[in-house]
Amino acid sequence: MNAEIIAIGSELLTPYFQDTNSLFLTEKLNHLGVTVDFKTVVGDNREHLTAAARVAVGRASIIIFMGGLGPTEDDLTRECVAAALDREIHRDPTLVTELYKRFAALRRRMPENNERQAEVIDGAVVLPNSRGSAPGQWLEIEHDGAPRMVMLLPGPPHEIKPMFEEQCMPLLRERVPRQCIATRVLKVAMMGESACDERIAPIYQRYADVQTTILAGAGDIQLRLTARADTQEAAQERVDELAGALEDALDDAVYSTAGESLEQIVGYYLQMRGATIAVAESCTGGLLGQRLSSISGSSRYFLGGAIVYSDEMKTLFANVPPMLISQHGAVSREVAAALAEGIREECRATIGVGITGIAGPSGGTDQKPVGLVYHAVADGKRTNVVERHYMGDRDRIRRWATQQALDMVRRAMM
Amino acid sequence: MNAEIIAIGSELLTPYFQDTNSLFLTEKLNHLGVTVDFKTVVGDNREHLTAAARVAVGRASIIIFMGGLGPTEDDLTRECVAAALDREIHRDPTLVTELYKRFAALRRRMPENNERQAEVIDGAVVLPNSRGSAPGQWLEIEHDGAPRMVMLLPGPPHEIKPMFEEQCMPLLRERVPRQCIATRVLKVAMMGESACDERIAPIYQRYADVQTTILAGAGDIQLRLTARADTQEAAQERVDELAGALEDALDDAVYSTAGESLEQIVGYYLQMRGATIAVAESCTGGLLGQRLSSISGSSRYFLGGAIVYSDEMKTLFANVPPMLISQHGAVSREVAAALAEGIREECRATIGVGITGIAGPSGGTDQKPVGLVYHAVADGKRTNVVERHYMGDRDRIRRWATQQALDMVRRAMM
Repeated sequence: MNAEIIAIGSELLTPYFQDTNSLFLTEKLNHLGVTVDFKTVVGDNREHLTAAARVAVGRASIIIFMGGLGPTEDDLTRECVAAALDREIHRDPTLVTELYKRFAALRRRMPENNERQAEVIDGAVVLPNSRGSAPGQWLEIEHDGAPRMVMLLPGPPHEIKPMFEEQCMPLLRERVPRQCIATRVLKVAMMGESACDERIAPIYQRYADVQTTILAGAGDIQLRLTARADTQEAAQERVDELAGALEDALDDAVYSTAGESLEQIVGYYLQMRGATIAVAESCTGGLLGQRLSSISGSSRYFLGGAIVYSDEMKTLFANVPPMLISQHGAVSREVAAALAEGIREECRATIGVGITGIAGPSGGTDQKPVGLVYHAVADGKRTNVVERHYMGDRDRIRRWATQQALDMVRRAMM
Repeated sequence: MNAEIIAIGSELLTPYFQDTNSLFLTEKLNHLGVTVDFKTVVGDNREHLTAAARVAVGRASIIIFMGGLGPTEDDLTRECVAAALDREIHRDPTLVTELYKRFAALRRRMPENNERQAEVIDGAVVLPNSRGSAPGQWLEIEHDGAPRMVMLLPGPPHEIKPMFEEQCMPLLRERVPRQCIATRVLKVAMMGESACDERIAPIYQRYADVQTTILAGAGDIQLRLTARADTQEAAQERVDELAGALEDALDDAVYSTAGESLEQIVGYYLQMRGATIAVAESCTGGLLGQRLSSISGSSRYFLGGAIVYSDEMKTLFANVPPMLISQHGAVSREVAAALAEGIREECRATIGVGITGIAGPSGGTDQKPVGLVYHAVADGKRTNVVERHYMGDRDRIRRWATQQALDMVRRAMM
């Protein structure tokens, strides 16, 4: 079965806003075995919206309209969908009463315009909205002899998500032919996308029945595997088999097999070992600390550390000898190591991390170009330093650098 | 004139990828006075793509296809657009030669399949691709007596952007009736969206000819003003007039009138005053440092600071007396002030900033709920502390907190 998702709102046709609900809906639909074949964005325009609705009914079995259900003259979804389906619209007296009650409870007078929100397409089932005033609608129709499921849902993410999950999914589950789908996600640190693909393509190409999607970020790759089969067990077996083969091929570059982020995995390891961590960041300026502390409960293992942007701070907070800096330069293997060792001792942490580099776009030289970063991890017994040359802009270089540092901590704890 | 943008690629119909090129194209088209009326996403499917192209030709004057120009069997844009326009396709011998030359230069054998990239729709102008192997195409046709401009462009952002800007924009400028458009952006810190709108709606509603768009982030609001008129001067006058009226109404909540970020503005002020800054962050864990250091050249005023996630770190790096913490709690007005004053003295900075709070989701109590944050700015003469209660998840609370701290620094330097 296939679906079309139609996002309605003139703001979605400006350079500033983007529909993101469709990603959520697509994931839910895919889990039922429904593929999304079309996505359309259309403005608050009667003619355009009616035309888009007519096109959709002609090409998809499941059609989801999002937005345009508010009380203003601009909210046209109800009437345009009705027109496209050649149906009448009526004002539902129960809904009208509920709207007035809602306003009365807030001790506000309801503008008469608001009654528009009680308009229902003939034959539609009303979907109550627990988070807002615009109810949704569910319709089943026939078009040229083929069945169609049509949904009108509100636009705000916190309204559409519970409505779709709690009310539409059960209806869809009863009507969409049952399919068995299994998924797995592997996450890989610090490999280039093409290097990763080169290593794994010969493997996943042997699994024609498993869909493999590669998503690449800065030093972070997600491999998403999806299989369909007649039984849940058969589907699960196929993704598990491929996941196992990919894990073997990628070895310890795989850091997660259950969807966790790298900072989460590092947190698990640290807690498991009863260890603590402290950081001294130069070019990343706080990004590593921010990532470590983005995990709720990270205070159990993340002590804190220092942002040592200037040379004086490197000495003040991480006891890096000024001589070492003048001798090797602030961006050097030696200073990275001294930062990791110094911050570890200062904070009495199990693990100390140091990062120093040139994030650009200015500040690079021939010997020390933009993108050069040294990362160090010290555990009291040994200090591991890695030199890397990153490509890309300031933001991307800083993301790669923190990813490398987190990956080194992970490997040190393995 | 109106446009439709069609993004092609099955990956854009998964939960993982989203077309972002259309935002860039929309901005460029808007500058010519062209509105985007429809956006469509369609997969690598012959029937679907041809149908989508037919629909687009029926409803838009400018039609931009993105993606599906590669050499594989999945790349169907050329043939499907040709089919929808009832045109033939031919292999361009010059392009074929260029493709072979390209491969020869890389000392690689060209797969024969690759010749597909030299296929050109009859009547199309070839748009050379300086960043990749797939050339674009530009076509002018008539549909039911109305003129249509049709573009086939590559999908990767670093290929489509220069091609559109350098080759399509000049062609469009010659053909789209000239309009005069002026824009202004005002940025506002630490106001709620509805509070801001309440204050300014009576003003911008008087300027029916200026389009006002409000974009709200965590403690950050952008007001985008656009006016069209017969002359550039007239358009500019209208946006400038409204911008002036909005600035008067919002007073010093407006931090930028030329598009700068808050961290950039804070950087300008600090440099202008020859001042330096150091931070001591508890609940934001490095995010404030990360934002300050995200600006290239920030090392001129940002010294660094400390991530004082544990109580011991607050004492170690910012000299907060342990007694003060045990007496008032780590999340308190007193500790925030001590952090700002302590880090300022330790780092010998002009300005010291302290943040302490409860980012959640765990760790809240009745007296100190999740979302409670204290922000302090010390300049040696006085220390200003602000208490705030934020709503939302961990990430959002931390963004609001850093925004508040940056805004306090801005106001201290004004």
